Amino acid sequence: MSDNEYSGLSCPIPISEYPHVLLAHGGGGKLMHQLIEKIFTATFANPMLETAHDGAVFKADSDRLAFTTDSYVVDPLFFPGGDIGKLAVDGTVNDLAMCGARPLYLSCGFIIEEGFSMDSLWKIALSMKQAADEAKVSIVTGDTKVVDKGRGHGLFINTAGIGSIGHDLTIAPSMVQPGDAVIVNGDIGRHGMAIMAHRESLSFETTIESDCAPLADTVMRLLDEDIEIHCLRDLTRGGLAASLVEIASVSGYRIAVEESKIPVVDQVRGACEILGFDPTYVANEGRMVIFVPKKEAEKALAVLRDQGLWPEAAIIGRVGDERTGIVTMKSLIGAERIVDMLSGEQLPRIC
Amino acid sequence: MSDNEYSGLSCPIPISEYPHVLLAHGGGGKLMHQLIEKIFTATFANPMLETAHDGAVFKADSDRLAFTTDSYVVDPLFFPGGDIGKLAVDGTVNDLAMCGARPLYLSCGFIIEEGFSMDSLWKIALSMKQAADEAKVSIVTGDTKVVDKGRGHGLFINTAGIGSIGHDLTIAPSMVQPGDAVIVNGDIGRHGMAIMAHRESLSFETTIESDCAPLADTVMRLLDEDIEIHCLRDLTRGGLAASLVEIASVSGYRIAVEESKIPVVDQVRGACEILGFDPTYVANEGRMVIFVPKKEAEKALAVLRDQGLWPEAAIIGRVGDERTGIVTMKSLIGAERIVDMLSGEQLPRIC
Repeated sequence: MSDNEYSGLSCPIPISEYPHVLLAHGGGGKLMHQLIEKIFTATFANPMLETAHDGAVFKADSDRLAFTTDSYVVDPLFFPGGDIGKLAVDGTVNDLAMCGARPLYLSCGFIIEEGFSMDSLWKIALSMKQAADEAKVSIVTGDTKVVDKGRGHGLFINTAGIGSIGHDLTIAPSMVQPGDAVIVNGDIGRHGMAIMAHRESLSFETTIESDCAPLADTVMRLLDEDIEIHCLRDLTRGGLAASLVEIASVSGYRIAVEESKIPVVDQVRGACEILGFDPTYVANEGRMVIFVPKKEAEKALAVLRDQGLWPEAAIIGRVGDERTGIVTMKSLIGAERIVDMLSGEQLPRIC
Repeated sequence: MSDNEYSGLSCPIPISEYPHVLLAHGGGGKLMHQLIEKIFTATFANPMLETAHDGAVFKADSDRLAFTTDSYVVDPLFFPGGDIGKLAVDGTVNDLAMCGARPLYLSCGFIIEEGFSMDSLWKIALSMKQAADEAKVSIVTGDTKVVDKGRGHGLFINTAGIGSIGHDLTIAPSMVQPGDAVIVNGDIGRHGMAIMAHRESLSFETTIESDCAPLADTVMRLLDEDIEIHCLRDLTRGGLAASLVEIASVSGYRIAVEESKIPVVDQVRGACEILGFDPTYVANEGRMVIFVPKKEAEKALAVLRDQGLWPEAAIIGRVGDERTGIVTMKSLIGAERIVDMLSGEQLPRIC
């Protein structure tokens, strides 16, 4: 946890009085109202949240909307490059962006284990606020539950999000076409290896930081430049490999990628080698694949790299016209193999 | 758990092979995709869910929308009159209805403890489907996480919901006016006492069943009859008392209710006496208070009682013009007392 972001601020619920969250903080009484008001409403401050109503009411600025949800159970809650709060905002913002939507509103459900540190809860709320501001979304409605000690694990967060779609494109795996270029916006594997290295207390010369970041602005830029996006997918659980396998399977076409073109920083490659992971299966939280027609690939890359936004962005492959629905990867030594989804997880509770 | 609802159906994932949910079922690989497809997508079946995309894209039929969320951590997962699945649908549907919105779409996030019964998970999915059909909503997007054994408790569910508002009323605590009648749609305290009696293995002559039910159709009927609703609130955690205290506090007016007019069935009253609960603080999952102008109160009551919908609906009090923001209750023997929120909970994990 970075101390700097929160320096000079102290928890609005006196830690001396309530160092830990109690079961009563989820009971619907005074303590719950105080917790919600001081920790959440005051931090996420916006008019909709302050109505103290069962839900938020808003006017949609578009009649086409996107709706998505994710629960976050990452362990540990604080990791290099982020925390569960930032992840819970960015993750859902990114799912909206993957639909080509501009994120508008988030809901937020907390499931807190009795005994959880009040100060940590507050730091996580601050981190969510900061991430929401960065992604230009408001947290407009929420819910807080407390479960008995030993029947949760610190904190789980669910966010759901609504975004507006201001264009006429359909962005989906089924829109992928033969000839499409496959682009990634940056080097892969950092989120998963940051969590893993932290969990295993591995130390490298420099700490691997999570790539956790909001992607909506980037997607909006591509759309503003009239890039005809066919499909977007963020590379979370299962990593690049699982995302490509799923898209290939839905689209029905073969996706061919080249290992040499997939950006992986040395540090991540090194950590993967030590721990026996393949970086293409490692989770990311600020990386996506973008499918665009071949003729738009260079323009898309230029938009991504513009102003140093995503300097590592790269074309890593293309969609073939074979209707096999598989993913193939040409290795560094030139051999071609079929990429499959793993059966289970490389590492649990990554997000 | 009622066997009848699920009779003749068997879990689509072979119980002999996967009797329990594994960590790998949340890992982003083949097992997770199989779980989601067979248990959730096939059960909740609708075109949006089947796109296998990061979110659902829809066209709003109104430019005014409501958005809400709740997490459900009820213990036990199956109880007389319902289960966590029905609760997770009805609870969020009801929060939308309390904004005067017609529920359209739900998202659904599952946090499953490793080792949870696959068959129970499937029964809960079926129960959600049944509740969603009854409430006329579709479950259009979702997420599944698995946490290690001992770091969750069976199953937690988050749902978020979107509803459309097809009228011009503002329905909120701040709209409550002096003279408003306070109406409840039925007898109170059943959900809380059903859970409690089940947890404590208390047996009465007949089982107390939860009042868990969707309220959106009822609200739509009131609106269709042009009843000028000022405020709605479902009586969940903290019960009738906490809801009224919160509304009085936001509106700034005194709310005066009469104990003799609050419907409580004998069985619930008896169980409350044995266990030392006050029924006005006990959680409900299918009960609400409705604030309407005095002149519309009898008409509203007639709509509620029409066709035997809510035969126990009753006017239980009124809003005074004193700007005290408190709730008072005239007891059965005529004494008047101030109703306060409890500090914490009467019983944890009720919803």
